[in-house]
Formats: sequence, C-alpha cells, structure tokens
Amino acid sequence: MKMAGKGLLVVVSGPSGAGKGTICKNLLDINKDIVASVSATTRMPREGELNGKNYFFVSRDKFEQMIADDDFIEYAVVYDNYYGTPRRFVEENLENGKDVLLEIDIQGALQVKDRYREGVFVFILPPSMEELKNRIIKRGTESEREILKRFEAAYKEINFVSRYNYFIINDKVDEATEKLRSIIIAEKCRVDRFKMQFIGE
Amino acid sequence: MKMAGKGLLVVVSGPSGAGKGTICKNLLDINKDIVASVSATTRMPREGELNGKNYFFVSRDKFEQMIADDDFIEYAVVYDNYYGTPRRFVEENLENGKDVLLEIDIQGALQVKDRYREGVFVFILPPSMEELKNRIIKRGTESEREILKRFEAAYKEINFVSRYNYFIINDKVDEATEKLRSIIIAEKCRVDRFKMQFIGE
Repeated sequence: MKMAGKGLLVVVSGPSGAGKGTICKNLLDINKDIVASVSATTRMPREGELNGKNYFFVSRDKFEQMIADDDFIEYAVVYDNYYGTPRRFVEENLENGKDVLLEIDIQGALQVKDRYREGVFVFILPPSMEELKNRIIKRGTESEREILKRFEAAYKEINFVSRYNYFIINDKVDEATEKLRSIIIAEKCRVDRFKMQFIGE
Repeated sequence: MKMAGKGLLVVVSGPSGAGKGTICKNLLDINKDIVASVSATTRMPREGELNGKNYFFVSRDKFEQMIADDDFIEYAVVYDNYYGTPRRFVEENLENGKDVLLEIDIQGALQVKDRYREGVFVFILPPSMEELKNRIIKRGTESEREILKRFEAAYKEINFVSRYNYFIINDKVDEATEKLRSIIIAEKCRVDRFKMQFIGE
C-alpha cells in the first residue's frame, strides 16, 4: 500500500476530445492544493506549448532510456508517439501529502490503476458523439487522417468507463469541473479510505 | 433493488450532539433538490418544535399501530421514546427521482442500511469528545441525568462509523456542510451506481 496516509492520486481520463483538458485546467484554477503531473512525450510541441509546463518534450532515445530505468508510472504509444508520466514527481508529492492530478489517456490510466488501486479514476464522457467530432475538428491542429483515427478510437474507448470509479458527462464545463472537485472532497470522507490509511485494512 | 434508476437516499447519522441537525439544515438551504424526511416520535415537543415540520408527534398507541402496519422503514427506542421514519414519504419521493435526506440516530441508520444498501450512509463525528459534551450541555433542554446517558452512548456509538460509507468531522460547520453536499454530487458520478441503475448489476 504505497499511498498510506498520503495525498490522493486523481486520474482523469477519457476519449480524446471529451474535454478533459479544460476540466483539469479549471480544477487547478479553483483548487490550489492539488498539483498537476507533467507528462513526457516524444511528439512535437503544438503552437503555444511550453517545455516543462504542457509536457516535457524529449527525444525517442531519451524516452526509451527512461523506460529502461523504470522512470515512468505509465507510458503508452499514442498515434506513433510516446507519452509517459514520470514517477518521481508523482510519488514525492503523494508522500508529502499533496494531491496529484494526472490527465492521461485510457491506456495509461489502466496501467496506473494496476499499480495504485487507491487512486481515484475519473472518466470524462463527451455529451454526444456528434459533439465529440466537432470538438476534435475545432481544435484544428491535426490532419484529417489523424482526426479520423482519434474518432474511431474514441468510440471503442468509451467501453472502458466500467473500469473507472467515476464518470462525468462533460455537458457544461463548469458543472463538470464542480463534479470533479466534489469527487475529490468526497473521496477524502470515505470510511474505506480512512480504514486503509489508519488501520491498514 | 428498490431504488433502481431513482433518487438518492442520503442517511446522515452520528452520536447525539455531533451537530448533524445543523449540517442537514444548512444542506437543505443550499440544495433545493433534496427533500427531508420527517420522523414520527412519541416524545413531547421541545419549545419551538412544530408538528409535521420537526416531527410528527404521535401517541404511543398510534406509533405501535404504525409498527404493526409496517409503516416505518426504521424505528427505534431512544431514551424511552419511539422514533421512526414513515415509509411512504421516502419511497414515493425516491420513486419520483427525488433525493431524500434522513437525519436519524445510529440504531435507525443501521436498520435502513439492511433494507436499502444503495443508500449513502454518512456518519458525523464531533471534533472532540470534550466539544461533544459542551454541545449537549449548551442545548439546555435536558436534565443532567439525560445528558450523562447521551454522553455515555456517544462514546460507544462512535465505533459504528465503520458501518458507514462516509464520515465527516464537524470541525467547522460550513466545511462539514460542503463535504455533505460534495458527497451527494460525487455519488451520482459513481460508475458502480450507474451500473446498478442501468445494467442492473
């Protein structure tokens, strides 16, 4: 039981285009007690993205060395690029009693779940598939082929909701953010979590 | 599975003097979508208490007839008086998709749990035993013998927290109310509850 007595690991995931990025950003604005993990990736930065803030942009060689050194709590290949969550930042913050927010794809979230079953796993659902398509297209940073790839993946990925603890339908982003905030508050009141922390059950 | 697809049954309980009454009152002020169940009792009204609002004040004969008719979802004897939750109001509201709040003692809550396992059971804890003693004394409506009885009961009752889903330490009443509100929001996002409602697992 790695996290006994420590911070809460909150994993927010869901299909691409469901709006999980906006919800997480809003949560971080209203909840200053939670820290966001920064992923490492081998993909090229999009316009406006900063190294160390949005992602750690690293070479393929560097990423593969980090895998070999067990430096990730999860990593995955998405659209031919590596994405991964550096272990040290997450574990140090949890040890210090800080809540840590991971916004990651579904493959990654399921890897984290295998290792950290005390984590809180939240699946963001788009209001409808049509809406999902519009959001991906509006983002305007991907080729048509990439959009089609993502859309097909999203349909399949929605079935993974059953592996999560919570789901949020991102109908109105403010309400969705409030739900995520409430889930974190409620989880800290759970008797089961208290037992895990203090009785070791 | 009585509540499938319906409102949420929220049961708030805890030792006498922990402040559950104030928390429930505050919750009802900020959450207009939840309705409070009104208990029936055979005890005498305290000053300012209204029949049908605070309690239904009924005779012992009437109460025992209601027990015989299976009109309660729970009832208990507390300090030589009957207290009970009329079934019809609760079940009709849940059927209509309304959330229902029960503020009841621990014996009663455990009876409700046996029947409605999909309910959300919240245990309110006083910040400390000393504080609990002060709150009971300050209420000023009971004899010293009754105060002592309640205080001894509270110590024993705190062990029942392990039978509940959530606990809230009533340190600051506004924070405690916010926690109760968050628990209700979060419960509606739980994947397990969604499965119960729509897949019947």
